[in-house]
Amino acid sequence: MSRDERYMKTAIQMASETVGQTSPNPSVGAVVIKDNELVGLGVHVKAGESHAEVHALKMAGEKAEGAEIYVTLEPCSHYGKTPPCAKAIIDAGIKRVVIASHDPNPEVSGKGINMMREAGIEVRTDVLKEEADQLNLDFFHFIQTGEPYVRLKTAMSLDGKIATHTGESQWITGEEAREDGHTYRHLSDAILVGIQTVLSDNPKLTTRIEGKGRNPIRVVFDSKLRTPRSSYLVQNEEAPTWIFTGKQASKEAVQELQAFNHVIVIQQEGEQVDVHQALQYLGEQKVTSLLVEGGGTIADAFVRAGKVEEIITYMAPKLIGGKDASTPVSGKGISELKSAPEYQVVSHDQIGEDIKIVSARRRENHVYRDY
Amino acid sequence: MSRDERYMKTAIQMASETVGQTSPNPSVGAVVIKDNELVGLGVHVKAGESHAEVHALKMAGEKAEGAEIYVTLEPCSHYGKTPPCAKAIIDAGIKRVVIASHDPNPEVSGKGINMMREAGIEVRTDVLKEEADQLNLDFFHFIQTGEPYVRLKTAMSLDGKIATHTGESQWITGEEAREDGHTYRHLSDAILVGIQTVLSDNPKLTTRIEGKGRNPIRVVFDSKLRTPRSSYLVQNEEAPTWIFTGKQASKEAVQELQAFNHVIVIQQEGEQVDVHQALQYLGEQKVTSLLVEGGGTIADAFVRAGKVEEIITYMAPKLIGGKDASTPVSGKGISELKSAPEYQVVSHDQIGEDIKIVSARRRENHVYRDY
Repeated sequence: MSRDERYMKTAIQMASETVGQTSPNPSVGAVVIKDNELVGLGVHVKAGESHAEVHALKMAGEKAEGAEIYVTLEPCSHYGKTPPCAKAIIDAGIKRVVIASHDPNPEVSGKGINMMREAGIEVRTDVLKEEADQLNLDFFHFIQTGEPYVRLKTAMSLDGKIATHTGESQWITGEEAREDGHTYRHLSDAILVGIQTVLSDNPKLTTRIEGKGRNPIRVVFDSKLRTPRSSYLVQNEEAPTWIFTGKQASKEAVQELQAFNHVIVIQQEGEQVDVHQALQYLGEQKVTSLLVEGGGTIADAFVRAGKVEEIITYMAPKLIGGKDASTPVSGKGISELKSAPEYQVVSHDQIGEDIKIVSARRRENHVYRDY
Repeated sequence: MSRDERYMKTAIQMASETVGQTSPNPSVGAVVIKDNELVGLGVHVKAGESHAEVHALKMAGEKAEGAEIYVTLEPCSHYGKTPPCAKAIIDAGIKRVVIASHDPNPEVSGKGINMMREAGIEVRTDVLKEEADQLNLDFFHFIQTGEPYVRLKTAMSLDGKIATHTGESQWITGEEAREDGHTYRHLSDAILVGIQTVLSDNPKLTTRIEGKGRNPIRVVFDSKLRTPRSSYLVQNEEAPTWIFTGKQASKEAVQELQAFNHVIVIQQEGEQVDVHQALQYLGEQKVTSLLVEGGGTIADAFVRAGKVEEIITYMAPKLIGGKDASTPVSGKGISELKSAPEYQVVSHDQIGEDIKIVSARRRENHVYRDY
């Protein structure tokens, strides 16, 4: 590992601890090095607060003069909630900048780099770029598509069943795998289930992890607006509940649910909730990541819409069998193998007694493949 | 790794290359060491031929006098097709014997060890026992139950589908995974499919691997004896075809199929082919291992009979979806999660683009748990 890679690795490691907390902004880390000594570091903590570079330069103080800065993402060049970081770097007298990821927005990408080069600063790019890109899969996808990055989480037996034919499903996977699954709620802006899951499980959809977890916005696809007033999602205010419904929903039913302050009903014009429209709406609300948890019909709608970017599969080493036992993706399904969306395995690990497989849409199909 | 473990590891490595070829005998390796020099080695090549110890002692010749022998399995004490190896070891003047696995037959286990100890030989047991036991899972199970060790092989998508809802199934997994799957045919005494698979795929069920593979006996469960005369399994003589059927099969249909020299029809008294009776019959015919390849109804019958010892799962990183798409274990299925047979993950690896998971019945349930 070269010197540049070593310092960048530290910046990536710092930023990785902020994944999920900066939405709708990216996770970024920065390290200031003067004469091979670390003199400043920072991360972006939360949207609306200082960027990573600003924290790091502030900590370095006068030592920033003639120093190097390592940043996991190209410094911004525009005036937003904060002044441009490229300008702050120039003003601090930094002599060399090392960058991992490029700005994902094609309209501004490269502008921060140019601004600094024009000021006489040496700029090196693409150091540990792939690793740094992983920090901001959700953000990059959101910036480039205007829609949240969709993760599908499933838990099943070795023969692909999520319940017995009698409907028993708690629990197929072990405690460790279920806890691991909850971390994805903490990392997601929103979580989605279908009305069938609400009616049969009355789920909380809150984040139960060690320490305090962030609760995602709870989204329900409910074409006929059958979500019960008595359901946990309506009665409990721990997190907002957004219910997508279709044209059949009566004005009265909508009003009754919206009487709860944390509940919003989004009525679409079709009979069934449309995946594309819903994702656009969520994107407009700055939801950068969506965790789809169930059930099979919802998952199928997302698969057929081509909107699943990542799949988290937990498999318990059990066999359940049954032609009528539920599977993680049901509905109609695809008709021809060649139209099955293809993914690549990112990792496979044993979690407790179970196997966890993470798959992501193939790189060559990534919307940000040109970066 | 101790000196004893090092020599035993070599013996295990040698024996591992013979797995499958020695049926219905175990795979065994032996190494003779004199003054820290390797002076003899041998494996059991094929049933009816010399045991590993005999080959190794023969190679060592006069150097066996005062030497040590490392054997992966307790030397036999009985006169069978060959004289007892324990006696050969005593006669050769071996001074120390190191053993990994015990004889799996409770009636003779320990007899070979006692015979050698009584002759004044130092005997150490259990060196790398677990590793050596893995060489002979099939044989140990066969000796202790009288039935073949059953492996279930499945290939599916990330959402547990083995075909689209329109029935397209070729191919879900990639070439590397399919080739890997063929090695299990080479290692198995017999391979089993249901009549549905015969009717819809007209499979060959032969072993296509690099170099020449052993073909397993082709077994079909066909309660109504609908296997077509024109099917590959009947027309082609590359391997025996054994068809299990029920009482409805007519004498004429049985005779017509048995007119083919390589075809045997086994008629049971019930309407449906009974898994237990079939496994007993196969055991009586010295079939020590059975590979169950499909389809879902057959797999379900074995799962509900509690007869699946090992599961080989190939998963392609694809999503297929569909309530009506086939899954690897269909049929009726189990009704309560607590009655699902439990396994433990032995390994998980990436094979080409796919993931391979090997699971084995939990150790504490193993019939040979007392060894």
